[in-house]
Amino acid sequence: MKKVSIVLMGYGNVGRAFLCLVKDKSEILQERYGLSLCFSAIVELGGTLCFPRTFDPESIVQDWPDIAFLKTSPYWKPGYDVFGALDELDGEVLVDCTPSRILKGTSEISSLHLALERGWNVVTANKGPLVADFRGLIKKAKQKKVELKMSGATAAALPTIDVGCYSLAGTSVTRIEGILNGTTNYILTRISKGVHYDEAVKEAQEKGITEPDPSLDLEGWDTAFKILLITNNVCDTDFSLDDVRIEGIKNMPSGLIEEGREEDKALKLMGIYSAGGNEPDIQVKPSIINRAHPLFGVDDTNKGITFHTDTMSAVTVTGGKSDPRGAAAALLKDIINIYR
Amino acid sequence: MKKVSIVLMGYGNVGRAFLCLVKDKSEILQERYGLSLCFSAIVELGGTLCFPRTFDPESIVQDWPDIAFLKTSPYWKPGYDVFGALDELDGEVLVDCTPSRILKGTSEISSLHLALERGWNVVTANKGPLVADFRGLIKKAKQKKVELKMSGATAAALPTIDVGCYSLAGTSVTRIEGILNGTTNYILTRISKGVHYDEAVKEAQEKGITEPDPSLDLEGWDTAFKILLITNNVCDTDFSLDDVRIEGIKNMPSGLIEEGREEDKALKLMGIYSAGGNEPDIQVKPSIINRAHPLFGVDDTNKGITFHTDTMSAVTVTGGKSDPRGAAAALLKDIINIYR
Repeated sequence: MKKVSIVLMGYGNVGRAFLCLVKDKSEILQERYGLSLCFSAIVELGGTLCFPRTFDPESIVQDWPDIAFLKTSPYWKPGYDVFGALDELDGEVLVDCTPSRILKGTSEISSLHLALERGWNVVTANKGPLVADFRGLIKKAKQKKVELKMSGATAAALPTIDVGCYSLAGTSVTRIEGILNGTTNYILTRISKGVHYDEAVKEAQEKGITEPDPSLDLEGWDTAFKILLITNNVCDTDFSLDDVRIEGIKNMPSGLIEEGREEDKALKLMGIYSAGGNEPDIQVKPSIINRAHPLFGVDDTNKGITFHTDTMSAVTVTGGKSDPRGAAAALLKDIINIYR
Repeated sequence: MKKVSIVLMGYGNVGRAFLCLVKDKSEILQERYGLSLCFSAIVELGGTLCFPRTFDPESIVQDWPDIAFLKTSPYWKPGYDVFGALDELDGEVLVDCTPSRILKGTSEISSLHLALERGWNVVTANKGPLVADFRGLIKKAKQKKVELKMSGATAAALPTIDVGCYSLAGTSVTRIEGILNGTTNYILTRISKGVHYDEAVKEAQEKGITEPDPSLDLEGWDTAFKILLITNNVCDTDFSLDDVRIEGIKNMPSGLIEEGREEDKALKLMGIYSAGGNEPDIQVKPSIINRAHPLFGVDDTNKGITFHTDTMSAVTVTGGKSDPRGAAAALLKDIINIYR
């Protein structure tokens, strides 16, 4: 049995779902993978819950409490942050579930660097630091011979990097096309049914599908982050966010919307990498696909990705649950695959 | 650089494509994966080509010759078989590309057992021994701490076991549905267009889509072998071929054929595993699926598979090239993932 000690950074919906999942899966993890996962700390804004060494998550709690309750615990250390935890605690994996604050992730970048530097593996659902310093973080992980896994940040329960790097190992991936953002795909599906853009956005908001600030989705940024991270992992490229030509679904030409409503056609916000032509190219744009396209039929909040390869032809993956538990399952999958 | 020496068993279309692929990919294998693959022997009916130690596949040949030519080589040892090769040659991986002779694979089973017993990894495209003695072979591999990889035998370039075991690690797979046989899918696609069964089979034969003996495909055996191997790997079950209820596409009721021709419906030969209900169940049968099914649209010779899970919802994979080079790419992928 391999015992793995985790420091969890971020105790929002995904962080909490991750704790619950590890508890629910503890038997399977031991039996099937020979893994016993435990937590040494939960780091949040304002402080850290440091578990005593004897802490056994399974025996103590039925349901994981919310953050307010955590702060009343005798183990809560106000002002103690992730840098303290990485310095002083025993741990092997840092799980980053803090929300993505793109281009503002300086302290998260430093904490990931520090974790890798200290020889911890890092598993993250946070796109911010990865987008801001992909090459630096990957380089550090290689140098220290530890793993930096990011399924949680790249469409989570939809396998993307896994499939590109593992299932397609040895192929040359010449093109990637992905429907990588559930919110915009829902809105475009509604638009294809004749609903007006503003109305479709409102519907998505009412259904709780959008983020509090929907602009990252609507303007194509979220798709850009994901296609960037997937491409850099799978194709070993070195794209930065500046290299991605980004067109969102705001202000689409009416001709495009009309064409997307035709039978046998669909309008999708695609993240696209292309190795062909003169130079590798990466972009996000609203695109018409027809019935023969393998992503035709990926509607509503569903996601999907197609890898075009030299020796295996095109391979497409669709599905995967888009909720905190799905994201938690992606984080857990990455941990299992590190210690497999 | 890790140097890996291979004994290749079977020099038909797939075996030859595998040799060519290793030669074509030699640079990428070294650069990206730190792997240098070389061959110590090619075993065929009637004898074995034993390469001298200094043999470098890249420098000597432009195109790999056919088997008749191999037999004229000074390195050809008539009567020397795989057991001799496993006893006397240096090697780390046995690659089995012999054609599947289901239920008649006694000597292949013994050769795989011997390879595992001697501490070799085994990578195979041959369903025969796997179906006949799955549990015994897996047990031997675990005992000897070596790998037994079978992507080449389970839909090849369509990732199946990989996705179930790696990308969905930590989930419980509650149901698997697969369109796993290109020949029958082609025939059913033609039938859905109004073509009669006999005519569709003839078309498939004329296009070279069928095997010389098409009954393994038409009667559902090939699909049964694949769903059996995939399920036993992914769900850690212990099904044998006797457990699979098999219904092929011969003699389908006319009502079923008519229903499959309706708009928004499709008739597919499905391999199905279900964990639910009283007892786990595994079967092959012609099934109607509707437009909402993730495998709707997987037509002609294409293949696809859907895994239903507890925590990640349903994940579907489609595509992958169905030809000797695609099968060779699946074998190579397995080797890369062993040494990764």
